[in-house]
Amino acid sequence: MCQSCNDKIEFLTREGEDRRNFLRNGAALAAAPLAATALAGTASAQEGGNALAGTASAQESGNALEASEVQAWATNDTSGSFAPQTIKRRAAGPKDVVIEIMYASICHSDIHTAHGDWGMPTFPLVPGHEMVGRVVGVGAEVIKFREGDYAGVGCMVDSCGECANCLADREQNCLNGTTFTYNSEDKVSGGVTYGGYSKKIVVTEDFALRIPPGVDLAGFAPLLCAGITTFSPINHWDLKPGERFGVIGMGGLGHMAVKLAVAKGAEVVVFTTTEDKIADALAFGAKEAYLWTDEEAMKKNMGSFDLMVSTVPVAYPMQQFMNLLKLDKTLVNVGALFPIEGAQGMLMGFGRQSLAGSMIGGIAETQAVIDFAAHHGIAADYELISPDQIGEAFKKVVNKEARYRYVIDMTKA
Amino acid sequence: MCQSCNDKIEFLTREGEDRRNFLRNGAALAAAPLAATALAGTASAQEGGNALAGTASAQESGNALEASEVQAWATNDTSGSFAPQTIKRRAAGPKDVVIEIMYASICHSDIHTAHGDWGMPTFPLVPGHEMVGRVVGVGAEVIKFREGDYAGVGCMVDSCGECANCLADREQNCLNGTTFTYNSEDKVSGGVTYGGYSKKIVVTEDFALRIPPGVDLAGFAPLLCAGITTFSPINHWDLKPGERFGVIGMGGLGHMAVKLAVAKGAEVVVFTTTEDKIADALAFGAKEAYLWTDEEAMKKNMGSFDLMVSTVPVAYPMQQFMNLLKLDKTLVNVGALFPIEGAQGMLMGFGRQSLAGSMIGGIAETQAVIDFAAHHGIAADYELISPDQIGEAFKKVVNKEARYRYVIDMTKA
Repeated sequence: MCQSCNDKIEFLTREGEDRRNFLRNGAALAAAPLAATALAGTASAQEGGNALAGTASAQESGNALEASEVQAWATNDTSGSFAPQTIKRRAAGPKDVVIEIMYASICHSDIHTAHGDWGMPTFPLVPGHEMVGRVVGVGAEVIKFREGDYAGVGCMVDSCGECANCLADREQNCLNGTTFTYNSEDKVSGGVTYGGYSKKIVVTEDFALRIPPGVDLAGFAPLLCAGITTFSPINHWDLKPGERFGVIGMGGLGHMAVKLAVAKGAEVVVFTTTEDKIADALAFGAKEAYLWTDEEAMKKNMGSFDLMVSTVPVAYPMQQFMNLLKLDKTLVNVGALFPIEGAQGMLMGFGRQSLAGSMIGGIAETQAVIDFAAHHGIAADYELISPDQIGEAFKKVVNKEARYRYVIDMTKA
Repeated sequence: MCQSCNDKIEFLTREGEDRRNFLRNGAALAAAPLAATALAGTASAQEGGNALAGTASAQESGNALEASEVQAWATNDTSGSFAPQTIKRRAAGPKDVVIEIMYASICHSDIHTAHGDWGMPTFPLVPGHEMVGRVVGVGAEVIKFREGDYAGVGCMVDSCGECANCLADREQNCLNGTTFTYNSEDKVSGGVTYGGYSKKIVVTEDFALRIPPGVDLAGFAPLLCAGITTFSPINHWDLKPGERFGVIGMGGLGHMAVKLAVAKGAEVVVFTTTEDKIADALAFGAKEAYLWTDEEAMKKNMGSFDLMVSTVPVAYPMQQFMNLLKLDKTLVNVGALFPIEGAQGMLMGFGRQSLAGSMIGGIAETQAVIDFAAHHGIAADYELISPDQIGEAFKKVVNKEARYRYVIDMTKA
């Protein structure tokens, strides 16, 4: 990372061409130039696993803004096997940023989509909605980024920006249709969108998140979905310091929920199906951790929680956890499960408990979780893999072997 | 009703024996004495259907406070057939009131319990948790009532009064176990409790509700369960004037939900499965009413509701109604259904909607709905029946023939 750039961080207003020159000059101050990888079908840039220790290579901004062919890792059927494939990225518009993706992490949603669990996707499918990289090009009207900044992209790449929901920072609920990061209609270029299992992405700056340069970049990629997905209910249901917060299922999302809620000052309790995760939960700051099968613990915890978040990605017996809530409190399902099963209307009525759903969060809230995590020194626990290990990692996620995110290292691709 | 008593209504403080004398004297002013029915195994008191037009017969307070045998209508198996049966009522303690039941209405819960839908009840079973009657005896320490007052009893007759939930006016969630009005362990007298399908009940004044003397007493009985059950979520989720409120299912509970929410100033929309209820819904003040099968209406109402209450007493396809909620809003199930079916976790997550349960309300809130209904001129729509019609009425309720409550006229028994 360019330390001289860091030292000059300031709020940039829209200044047209003058500002562009300023950005170019700022980028020119970088000790390490950016690699000219954006136009190449194959990746040539190399970046160390530790972003702070890595070297950056230069790239002409002019080139970076042009339409390009980019190496991606795609699947062409529901088998879950991936192979390199070239995709097209559009020329950057005046409000677009071009991001050279360094790290893309694997979310269970990628697996559900690739396996066709949610209907048949459009092939080739390039998943990936948790990515962090370096800004290698900025359109003329971009105000949030300059070249050399680190940026993240999450589950969305566009929305109308004008409807009531967009104006309320709920771009994920855009009344004119959110454009999701992959397998979504691409309203700019036509066809479908391609995600982060690729070397580069072009996105309007409104959907690019600022990643602080001093953080663990690979460990920050999972914040773009797992982080915001668990942070949003913590905020919306207003979890307070000292309150008792239950996390059901501790995988990629669950372990972020634990870390974020601990940083919020809550008393965090984990319910897992995997024995060896109990020690991990305590290491992440949870006060207690139990197996679902621990009947004594379930009994002891009856009526004790102010909020629970379930990250379980499939239907599961829900009422046993509803029973752990205090009166009037809520269990929020953030796992992308389909049917609500095992919840009993009458028992819920008895304690006026609620069962809610929640899905990611708006862009402003996503920036908030990134800033919160940076402030509190939080990042995901992850294992770096190379793109040729995606298929294998998919299987491990399903088998609950992830500890706790697989992050694809695009700098090694 | 004794008009001279009415003219002297005042707030009574605890005055010991002096106050008792005052109450006796007050009662003595009544033009019509109370009938000496409390000790009789069969009923002899007669009261006109219109309470205001009826005559009251006198009864010695001393006798009314003694333990007694009371005529009730009980079932002894799950067939749903009822027959007269004598039950015992305890001697009134210092804080008890003795109520000569005039009207007891039939709630679907009575039917579920009698049919064994919720497990085998204790026989003989005397249901009834919506009752209004006349106070014919007050214990020495009673402060809320005097003889000749009208009083109601709802779903509960006792709780510890000391736990955190009782102190928070949530007696229905008593941590030491609420005593429900029937088929519940009777912690005072032993055995099980017997409900309102009877001529008399003895209950601590803390669980007796004041019924304004000038109201339609038969139409007020359903407020004790149907009223509070639908009023409580309207309050808890803070329905505001002008907000759009959906009522799913318009039976005994649903028609109360409509009337109460209309009086709150909400824009009420009814979803029913019964065509002839559409006109009724509009007559009750709903702005719109639709059949569930009206796909066009369901589509038109997508994302438009601030709050929905479902009174459907069985599992039903829920997601189609969740889709009608605005972002972050709640559908509250107050029907005593068991499994939550047809709700889709992912779709709920998309709009951050909640599915909640709610059950009756505390005593203070029950008094509030009675006062609210009196103030706004609201009462249930009902059909008076005699006790020998209970079994038949059960069948009609299940067949959706009730318009909208069957009220058992105990004054004619």
